[in-house]
Amino acid sequence: MGTTQLETVPEPKYWHLKTVLSEALDSEFSVGEILPNERDLAARFGVARATLRQALEQLELEGRLQRRRGVGTTVAPPRMGVAVGTEQRAWPGVAGDTWQLADCAMAAPPAAVAGILESLQGEQVYTVRRSRVTRGQPVAAELLYVPASSVPGLSAVDTRSGTARARSVLRELQRLELEGQDSAVELGSARAEDAKELDRLPGAPVLVVTTRFFAEGRTAAVSVATYRADTCRLTFGDSGGIEIHDGPERRAS
Amino acid sequence: MGTTQLETVPEPKYWHLKTVLSEALDSEFSVGEILPNERDLAARFGVARATLRQALEQLELEGRLQRRRGVGTTVAPPRMGVAVGTEQRAWPGVAGDTWQLADCAMAAPPAAVAGILESLQGEQVYTVRRSRVTRGQPVAAELLYVPASSVPGLSAVDTRSGTARARSVLRELQRLELEGQDSAVELGSARAEDAKELDRLPGAPVLVVTTRFFAEGRTAAVSVATYRADTCRLTFGDSGGIEIHDGPERRAS
Repeated sequence: MGTTQLETVPEPKYWHLKTVLSEALDSEFSVGEILPNERDLAARFGVARATLRQALEQLELEGRLQRRRGVGTTVAPPRMGVAVGTEQRAWPGVAGDTWQLADCAMAAPPAAVAGILESLQGEQVYTVRRSRVTRGQPVAAELLYVPASSVPGLSAVDTRSGTARARSVLRELQRLELEGQDSAVELGSARAEDAKELDRLPGAPVLVVTTRFFAEGRTAAVSVATYRADTCRLTFGDSGGIEIHDGPERRAS
Repeated sequence: MGTTQLETVPEPKYWHLKTVLSEALDSEFSVGEILPNERDLAARFGVARATLRQALEQLELEGRLQRRRGVGTTVAPPRMGVAVGTEQRAWPGVAGDTWQLADCAMAAPPAAVAGILESLQGEQVYTVRRSRVTRGQPVAAELLYVPASSVPGLSAVDTRSGTARARSVLRELQRLELEGQDSAVELGSARAEDAKELDRLPGAPVLVVTTRFFAEGRTAAVSVATYRADTCRLTFGDSGGIEIHDGPERRAS
């Protein structure tokens, strides 16, 4: 990278620097390569370190860079396309599901989930924990909330292990006729437990997908899935399986 | 809010503070109310200002707080549900479309969009700019890229105004049979132009939705829509019209 003086540019310095850095990443660096340290980079581009940091943060938000503890800042691979919506409705855990069961507990859901489920405050529901791994990398952690009324065939005094119990809950849930499902995606911050599972720091930006499953004229289950925002792009629509390998905004600066 | 000493808590201080603050927001503050300044807040909770700032940033990511220039930090209203996927395929601009046409220009798309469109590098395409307003608030800015080959009936020497030309492009596009469409959503940072339109600072976190429209066995158009991440949750699925007013992660700390 050559020295580029940015003194005369009218837009915010970090913004222009981001564009310059982005072009340098395309032309001079390969995926996984470690960037020079901040002091060297700031000197090369003739900017203050605060300006450099702002530009690096932008590039991290856009998925171009990854900051990894003990490694430094590396050039990120293209984000993975991860399907979150398909044409067909399906209960969690049916054949072809990409999630792995981890655990099941009885717990009082967060107030907002209780609101969606129209359960009483403090009422415990089956809480199934699942995780999703794509290409060997953890991409999402999910909590699936299932009220006991949705799985009436399940024995309350179930002493089997967490995974076996999780399987039972899903099997019982699948007995209901699924009438519809909808999802919403929004920005969130990783809860400590999810962050650990996703190999991120607590509070890292994540994409939270909330899915409601409708049966018997009510919400029979709610899934709250936390996806890594740095490595994933969430795909939906009638060609959900097709991956867009290199999203427009990667270079749309 | 009373004074709460956090010295003895094992998890990161800002994390616990976030939970405490979140509960205070629920019980003591109403939507739109301005929070006390950082110094006062830090003193009340017995934490350093850096810790307070981290907690405030988390709450902002989660949509609980809004920082507004010249106003301060306020309690955010619940995020709006904005539908981005429906059961039915539809070209942009058909009846019932919630987008407003703003402009149309010929421009070379970003490299990644050119890649999806399989257009030549530097080749100019129709670039329609649209905006989306929900409940009086700007929620998204879109660039719709349409290669000339997708709208062969359109005269190249079209001298009408930007909006009229945008309308012509969409009308011509709608002549093609839409064979499918898919979308992907991912985290991004607001480009300067979008930020202005969305009343955000450049670089603010946004949700970028990229939609491909398929016709005649190829990608006939690509839309890149930038949604405000602070005020919106994007809904999709077969009950896309239903809004989830209070998302689980709002209180799922």
